[in-house]
Amino acid sequence: MEFALIERIRDRCTGARADVVLGIGDDAALLRVPAAHELAVTTDTLVAGVHFPHGADAADIGWKALAVNLSDLAAMGAMPAWVLLALTLPQADAAFVDGFASGFAELMQLHGVALVGGDTTGGPLAIGVTAHGLVPTGCALRRDGAQVGDAVFVTGTLGDAAAGLRWLDEARARRDGVDPSSRAALLQRMRRPTPRVAAGIALRGIASACIDVSDGLVADLGHVARRSAVGIRLHAAQLPASPALRAACAGELRIALQAAGGDDYELAFSAPPAHEDFILRELAALGCGATRIGSVVAGSGVQLVDAADRPVALAQPGWEHFA
Amino acid sequence: MEFALIERIRDRCTGARADVVLGIGDDAALLRVPAAHELAVTTDTLVAGVHFPHGADAADIGWKALAVNLSDLAAMGAMPAWVLLALTLPQADAAFVDGFASGFAELMQLHGVALVGGDTTGGPLAIGVTAHGLVPTGCALRRDGAQVGDAVFVTGTLGDAAAGLRWLDEARARRDGVDPSSRAALLQRMRRPTPRVAAGIALRGIASACIDVSDGLVADLGHVARRSAVGIRLHAAQLPASPALRAACAGELRIALQAAGGDDYELAFSAPPAHEDFILRELAALGCGATRIGSVVAGSGVQLVDAADRPVALAQPGWEHFA
Repeated sequence: MEFALIERIRDRCTGARADVVLGIGDDAALLRVPAAHELAVTTDTLVAGVHFPHGADAADIGWKALAVNLSDLAAMGAMPAWVLLALTLPQADAAFVDGFASGFAELMQLHGVALVGGDTTGGPLAIGVTAHGLVPTGCALRRDGAQVGDAVFVTGTLGDAAAGLRWLDEARARRDGVDPSSRAALLQRMRRPTPRVAAGIALRGIASACIDVSDGLVADLGHVARRSAVGIRLHAAQLPASPALRAACAGELRIALQAAGGDDYELAFSAPPAHEDFILRELAALGCGATRIGSVVAGSGVQLVDAADRPVALAQPGWEHFA
Repeated sequence: MEFALIERIRDRCTGARADVVLGIGDDAALLRVPAAHELAVTTDTLVAGVHFPHGADAADIGWKALAVNLSDLAAMGAMPAWVLLALTLPQADAAFVDGFASGFAELMQLHGVALVGGDTTGGPLAIGVTAHGLVPTGCALRRDGAQVGDAVFVTGTLGDAAAGLRWLDEARARRDGVDPSSRAALLQRMRRPTPRVAAGIALRGIASACIDVSDGLVADLGHVARRSAVGIRLHAAQLPASPALRAACAGELRIALQAAGGDDYELAFSAPPAHEDFILRELAALGCGATRIGSVVAGSGVQLVDAADRPVALAQPGWEHFA
């Protein structure tokens, strides 16, 4: 049975790469890392009821399981190459596996990634992905390089996924006056996040530090601040919002969703202010855009301030497992 | 909380490697693969109640979660280098995490492996490990190279882990007349399997095909037979048994445990008969030993025969998830 499930996934996740010497079907995959490159490796597990709602569409789960891992590679400025998939399923459900594989494969193909190994096990639904990317030696974006005086940017828009989760329940959305087309757009962003792979690569040599926004902007930039031994000051009014989020909510709620909501999978990064024009132009050309949202300052921690430079309190400072 | 758990594990899994450019604490690890080497990558998940008994000792679970992955690298002839750990826990249980990390770290240190990434999530207990090894280009052991006329060997002894599982219940062991010291030895082999890393490396350029015995000897050699498009003939009387297994049982039960029990994590491999002396001497020197148990023949599938060359029927042909 295990073998049959793996076959179903492999059949749907085609795509050969010359650097895969040996793919699925042996004790391990054999891979070739090109000269003068470093290997970036990350692993993330999604659990039903924690990272996606029970009953979520199988193809969306497949997409998201890969997207969150490619987003980690993007935050390193790495080019995705190979993935392994550990699938734990309550029962051998061919329809679920086919749906899952279709969403997973759709995103794989967009990035030319090869599935090179995996494992299926019986148990409560969970998906573990390990993703490998390649980056020229010394060019990776890290969390520890932010410098006082750098500007802080974020790609795309913030808060959509958290808003999608908030209004997953249709009756609640109606009650809150969220129009159906805005709700659909927010849900789509929650279900199918876009890893900013091209943006990460474009930021090699430009960004001084980078992280992807998974737990929430303030919480994630907190890691950058700590690792770089700096403070970060963010301007609430400058946080980018999508048209759907603007239509759905405003004021404190919107700021909270943008600053603490999480699950955005945008890149938040610092760079010398001299690079601002390049960054805005280059990332606009790549389709995601970027917005300057703050600066790196002496001190520690992340402070969100309003137009009058007063601290903005957030009801929910971040999102943690086991919270 | 997630961060605190990762810290606890990291603190217990020390050990630096010069090829780790960036370890735990960024979006991805950055690693250097040496020139003229291929990267071997494998992932395996252990689920409570499936791969180890509920209530098993945390340190034993940690050891085994790493051992099954290092065993896959051993079967490729790869030298283990880096691992990532995805830990799913019902609650943030520091005592469990500390115990788990101690067993995991103990085996890591034996093999000079570095923990370079991970993830902790709330959910039913499961452990996913992705292990990376290095092998000189073109020297990996694969499943698809067995040739008609090759001899078939296995390292160590077979059936102990399955016997340990059978007599996990002490009352049953007493009823079946298994003496306490044999039972203890069998349980130890089930709880703390030894990945045959040095043996795998010694077999580079010698073995024509190799696999580790996880699902059961006959089932696993079935993969070699299929991938190599050959048949394999095994002699039941030649399957190696430990003193503890010999003391605990005999006859059909012992053969079934050895041939189909699984969880042994020995290496089963084929090689030209001319290499037999080298193999027996070299693997004896490495401490695990090896036994010639059969040959590669024309045809397909794996056949187990008795001293009179009659097929031996096994009650339990292998072990599969969702079975």
